[in-house]
Amino acid sequence: MDFSSKLLENAVNEMSRLPGIGKRTALRLVLHLLKQPKENTAYLSEALLHLRNDMKNCEKCHNISDTVLCAICNNPKRNSEIICVVEDIRDVMAIESTSQFNGLYHVLGGKISPIEGIGPQNLKIDSLIKKVANEEVKELIFALSSTMEGDTTNFYIFKQIEKFNIKISTIARGISVGDELEYADEITLGRSIVHRIPFEQSIRG
Amino acid sequence: MDFSSKLLENAVNEMSRLPGIGKRTALRLVLHLLKQPKENTAYLSEALLHLRNDMKNCEKCHNISDTVLCAICNNPKRNSEIICVVEDIRDVMAIESTSQFNGLYHVLGGKISPIEGIGPQNLKIDSLIKKVANEEVKELIFALSSTMEGDTTNFYIFKQIEKFNIKISTIARGISVGDELEYADEITLGRSIVHRIPFEQSIRG
Repeated sequence: MDFSSKLLENAVNEMSRLPGIGKRTALRLVLHLLKQPKENTAYLSEALLHLRNDMKNCEKCHNISDTVLCAICNNPKRNSEIICVVEDIRDVMAIESTSQFNGLYHVLGGKISPIEGIGPQNLKIDSLIKKVANEEVKELIFALSSTMEGDTTNFYIFKQIEKFNIKISTIARGISVGDELEYADEITLGRSIVHRIPFEQSIRG
Repeated sequence: MDFSSKLLENAVNEMSRLPGIGKRTALRLVLHLLKQPKENTAYLSEALLHLRNDMKNCEKCHNISDTVLCAICNNPKRNSEIICVVEDIRDVMAIESTSQFNGLYHVLGGKISPIEGIGPQNLKIDSLIKKVANEEVKELIFALSSTMEGDTTNFYIFKQIEKFNIKISTIARGISVGDELEYADEITLGRSIVHRIPFEQSIRG
């Protein structure tokens, strides 16, 4: 693409680094901003900068949070004996929207994926094991996407915490194999939490 | 959507104001930025702010420009006797990429569209008429999209400049290169027969 303006070219290039945004889409988005009042661009830029610079991770569950402890971990009404293991904040949001879960979360930050070079050491697995070993956790619910990577991660964690005397369950396979958790409808996702089954049972098929 | 973080919510809301970006896509884009180095978000924000605050419109053709006169208007090799009337910078870029046009442009900034509340007074039509009246323009080429709005805009401008002694043309409408004839719409096909050109002319490019 041949831009007549360096400013425009820069903005389009930066915008098109975002996943799924090609040069043409980036140009359309940037031209839209040019037609809007200057404040809109300022709001967008500030919101992104604030987020990137001030965002914390909850010390307890590693979820994205504005404060040292996230709102869920900080809520005394939540049952701290049940921990739901998820991949990222989108899964927390998806499960929260079902209103079926009153425990706490543990956000791994991804799944074990040799192809993408993500091993157990890149995820928040150690802190989960420590949590299980030291705290009064009675049940762990695996709620990772039902994919090869999700299953691998489940199994890896299962092997590490087998020795502790806690219940380990996984959300019911009401969700089709291969589907991403964040796109599941609320009823299916809600039921899958209510009908969770022991992990041993799940790996037997 | 129920966000656990105000910072995240703000960023997603601002991002989802962009056209074609819903809340889910905005969340995906924003989480991508969180996984990238902080500099990337800074570069993006700065590029957008710079563009929005420092961008000028060329005084002559109204195209987006870093300088008072854009690179095309400033180029002494361009033929200032032919002006191509387009909607926005994307059309300038599209025509420039063909290397078939050596004249200047006039960027209207949109098309007349009563549904969207865009009238002639919202477009750079007055300055085009002044240009035709005062300068040595010999030909005006209409290169707006072939839609109701494009045709209306063409006709409105035509009525205003009819009285001046200049050639007024419009880009050829016909079957696109590579298109199957059987799928072409009747109007396009009809026009392409009425405005047929000598075969020798077509094989010369």
